[in-house]
Amino acid sequence: MKEVKKIVIIGGVACGPKAASRARRLLPDAEITIIEQGEIISYGSCGIPLYLAGMLPDIDSLMTTASGMKRSIEYFDQEKAVHVMNKTRATAIDREKKEVVIYQKEKGTESRISYDQLVLAVGADPIVPDVPGIQLNGVSVLHDPQQAESIRTAIKEEGIKQIAIIGGGAIGLEIAISLIGKGREVVLVERSDQLMPGIFDPEMADLIKRELEDNGVNVLLGEGLKSLKGDTQNQVKKFTTANGIYDTDMVIIATGVRPNVELARDCGLEIGETGAIKVNEYMQTSDPDIFAGGDCVENVHLVSGQKVYVPLASTSNKHGRVIGSNLAGKKETFPGILGTSAIQAGEYNAGKTGLTEKEALKLGYPVISTIVSGHDTAHYHPMHGKAILKLIAHQETGKLLGAQVTGMGEVIKRLDVYSAAIYMGADLEQISHFDTGYAPPFSTPIDIGIHGANALLNLKEGLVKGVSVPEVKQMLADKADFIMLDVRSAKEAKLRPLKGGVVVNIPITELRARYGEIPPHRKIIAFCPLGIRSYEAATLLQGKGYQNVSFMKGGTSALPELTDAD
Amino acid sequence: MKEVKKIVIIGGVACGPKAASRARRLLPDAEITIIEQGEIISYGSCGIPLYLAGMLPDIDSLMTTASGMKRSIEYFDQEKAVHVMNKTRATAIDREKKEVVIYQKEKGTESRISYDQLVLAVGADPIVPDVPGIQLNGVSVLHDPQQAESIRTAIKEEGIKQIAIIGGGAIGLEIAISLIGKGREVVLVERSDQLMPGIFDPEMADLIKRELEDNGVNVLLGEGLKSLKGDTQNQVKKFTTANGIYDTDMVIIATGVRPNVELARDCGLEIGETGAIKVNEYMQTSDPDIFAGGDCVENVHLVSGQKVYVPLASTSNKHGRVIGSNLAGKKETFPGILGTSAIQAGEYNAGKTGLTEKEALKLGYPVISTIVSGHDTAHYHPMHGKAILKLIAHQETGKLLGAQVTGMGEVIKRLDVYSAAIYMGADLEQISHFDTGYAPPFSTPIDIGIHGANALLNLKEGLVKGVSVPEVKQMLADKADFIMLDVRSAKEAKLRPLKGGVVVNIPITELRARYGEIPPHRKIIAFCPLGIRSYEAATLLQGKGYQNVSFMKGGTSALPELTDAD
Repeated sequence: MKEVKKIVIIGGVACGPKAASRARRLLPDAEITIIEQGEIISYGSCGIPLYLAGMLPDIDSLMTTASGMKRSIEYFDQEKAVHVMNKTRATAIDREKKEVVIYQKEKGTESRISYDQLVLAVGADPIVPDVPGIQLNGVSVLHDPQQAESIRTAIKEEGIKQIAIIGGGAIGLEIAISLIGKGREVVLVERSDQLMPGIFDPEMADLIKRELEDNGVNVLLGEGLKSLKGDTQNQVKKFTTANGIYDTDMVIIATGVRPNVELARDCGLEIGETGAIKVNEYMQTSDPDIFAGGDCVENVHLVSGQKVYVPLASTSNKHGRVIGSNLAGKKETFPGILGTSAIQAGEYNAGKTGLTEKEALKLGYPVISTIVSGHDTAHYHPMHGKAILKLIAHQETGKLLGAQVTGMGEVIKRLDVYSAAIYMGADLEQISHFDTGYAPPFSTPIDIGIHGANALLNLKEGLVKGVSVPEVKQMLADKADFIMLDVRSAKEAKLRPLKGGVVVNIPITELRARYGEIPPHRKIIAFCPLGIRSYEAATLLQGKGYQNVSFMKGGTSALPELTDAD
Repeated sequence: MKEVKKIVIIGGVACGPKAASRARRLLPDAEITIIEQGEIISYGSCGIPLYLAGMLPDIDSLMTTASGMKRSIEYFDQEKAVHVMNKTRATAIDREKKEVVIYQKEKGTESRISYDQLVLAVGADPIVPDVPGIQLNGVSVLHDPQQAESIRTAIKEEGIKQIAIIGGGAIGLEIAISLIGKGREVVLVERSDQLMPGIFDPEMADLIKRELEDNGVNVLLGEGLKSLKGDTQNQVKKFTTANGIYDTDMVIIATGVRPNVELARDCGLEIGETGAIKVNEYMQTSDPDIFAGGDCVENVHLVSGQKVYVPLASTSNKHGRVIGSNLAGKKETFPGILGTSAIQAGEYNAGKTGLTEKEALKLGYPVISTIVSGHDTAHYHPMHGKAILKLIAHQETGKLLGAQVTGMGEVIKRLDVYSAAIYMGADLEQISHFDTGYAPPFSTPIDIGIHGANALLNLKEGLVKGVSVPEVKQMLADKADFIMLDVRSAKEAKLRPLKGGVVVNIPITELRARYGEIPPHRKIIAFCPLGIRSYEAATLLQGKGYQNVSFMKGGTSALPELTDAD
């Protein structure tokens, strides 16, 4: 009798079902079982903020396929012949006997299930800060659709007016934006001194913070949660940080996740330096018959070569496909990630790929960077939006190390092109020649993404010097000795004057005739809204023999508080 | 006395002004002159269809910078110290004396201007078919803003009701869409048997044609213009093709452009095999002191290595930058293009990069291709749109050779990623690992662009066989002996039944239980809306021992007329 291969997959959200589906297509006869502790499987957890925002008809939308079929247990069973055991927890792995010990919650029974190959797709759990009052009613994490439903019901029925979100990462931001409205006060509390630390450099995070604030979110930075206080019904009413005590009716914890490694560690599988399960390029753990993927494993960062823990649904699904192939005896590899992240907050899109400037400097790279601002379509197209892009490159090789994008415009398109470029090891000159799709609704003739590479090439070649937004901010704060050369038109300069600093306004159109008005031995920083006219001005003055001249990279678009009309 | 370098640039639309600006920044002291035969310079000619559609406040929008400054002659003069001679025609180049002979139209005088380095950015002229009646009133090309204004005025004031556009290329399509509305009849006349031949493969062009028709454009294929007939006032009233005589009030010629090579040829510069000016990688003509760029030169196609003539504003601007650098003594190169093209027709976006399947086959590549359909965002996101992507790859190396995209969704993002991939020589496996930005508003967890690479990898590895849309159409037309296996739900199958062919409907969810109903020795083609369920079905049947089974690549999304409800 033919031996049937037994595949057991622990975890039924993203990587697990994907691995099961792929393995099923390649191995028509294998016995495939998914063990899932929850009730539902294969749901779009990233859509939870959309559900909270009332953008989905119902929570079930997150559990259907693109064809509208519900990804139920029956669906997996009938269509894919994948057996799903839900409400079932894997409590131990017996590698000797190749068995998983499972506990069926409803029956209350423990049993064993044997495997030839095992997949750990056990995900991650929310980190809950260990502070007094964390058990109060009205304090919750937001990790699965049921929790989302409870929160939405509470908001609807209990007239919640003040909501505190703890954690200014991607999820915290998305939740904050999704809950704003109808007279609710939403406060976002972040321990670090910027939003999304590790994802964005400070000046880019600042732009995102402004957008949240413009949408009505109150952002508290540098304030870690200290404690929570409730009323007599144990309903949360206040939260405390180092800086103050604040009223609240509801607290949502979004302080990140921690990989589930207990099962793996308990059976002796190797845990990586990041604290997540260690896997090789075939997604095998230290036991070659046990694969692992998704939010419980670490990844190789393709720029730094280092191990990183970046749990993301897109990566989990890719892991699942590679694992599914390898269960069927293929030798597919998963090379690693770029830590790409994308977020929509209000009408603002933002994202990063590769290394931030901070990360690159910390890793010891010789770094050059710039910010460019501009439009995502032809500027005369009625639907154009602003795009602000930051590029970080290797000073010597010119290779792109990372990019960050923000703006109302289609900036994720540029992010994706940069991510492809970094994956393929492109340098700035190659990117400057990319033949992306041009027509007025899609791009300027020289796309802003390509313009970014050109601008950084100019700096790399020393054609002109640029000063970054944080540097300008610091110099203004320090009341340093320099002249801000405002090359906007007199009308623009009057409408949105620079706040602070010594300012000379000579419009770019008059600079060639009037440059003599600028003292030649002072430090000059030219600025304008997009960094284009000021770049022009800096080259012009340089050509006239000015030695100490530079332009503000990205322009006031990248540093809006500099010229905000009062 | 210091010798001042004299740079003369002939042509003031895209490449010329860009080269002038770049050279100015690098060479503060050079004397730079632009010679332009028209009145205006540096305008966004690609925005003309938007102007026609009434999407721009006025025609001047096309002549301003992103900062809102008019790119006038004074602007170039004052801001850039670039001298512009407009309404001036260069009539000859004296390479011996390094002089350009110029004719100033208004003064009626001829003179000479000397150069150290010369740039030919003389563009292209519209091709006007040599047919009887072409000189009638109401027949015009649409090449510059003045022509656009005349056409718009004529439509407004003369009550034009029927408009014929001759030429089904990108410009013809854009014009057709922009002129539809207010009771006007617009007919688009294309000689070839598909729209945009050379840009799209037939099945992708078919989808675009449907979109035009849905927008009310009448598309005539396979009908070349034979003659035009007018009334007693010499106003055009009819046009004739091989197939018929049609009424019309206005005819717009959009049958492509031809590079302006007369100046170059007359002074002995080498003309390339494509009929455009030949340049090397530094954008130098056969005379190293004469550069050429923009719509008058040919380019290297980076996939085929062949010389091609693909005039595009994006390429012209890139040429200008490289030429500007090299005028200043740098040695920058322009490696070539991918023939990337993007178009918006109604709410439909479409584009191509690299080679079409037709081109790839003609060039002798071993080709594999597929079409995938899906959503551009998470399918549960309220703003999702359809994306249909075609990928063409090298059967052996797996390198992506080309891609075509269509749909209401953000397909140009995927086009741009593919164009970066092809530029960098990526193969399907690399693309399948691209770490693009995922969040529900931007992508499915496995982005459709990456899904495309995965799907083609499956075909490459022979995991399953796919049948293309044109093949299925042909087989249905031939009444070939095969079974169309409809794996949609019974409800979907009833709502949009397949037109023609022998159809068996077994929903994918029931296939595993009911596959025995399908005769094992017949040819089976599974189909569904997106090609996902049918792929699943084909692998399932294969697993059950069916030998002659395949799925329809791209699904009925890619072949909508197959299941159109009557």
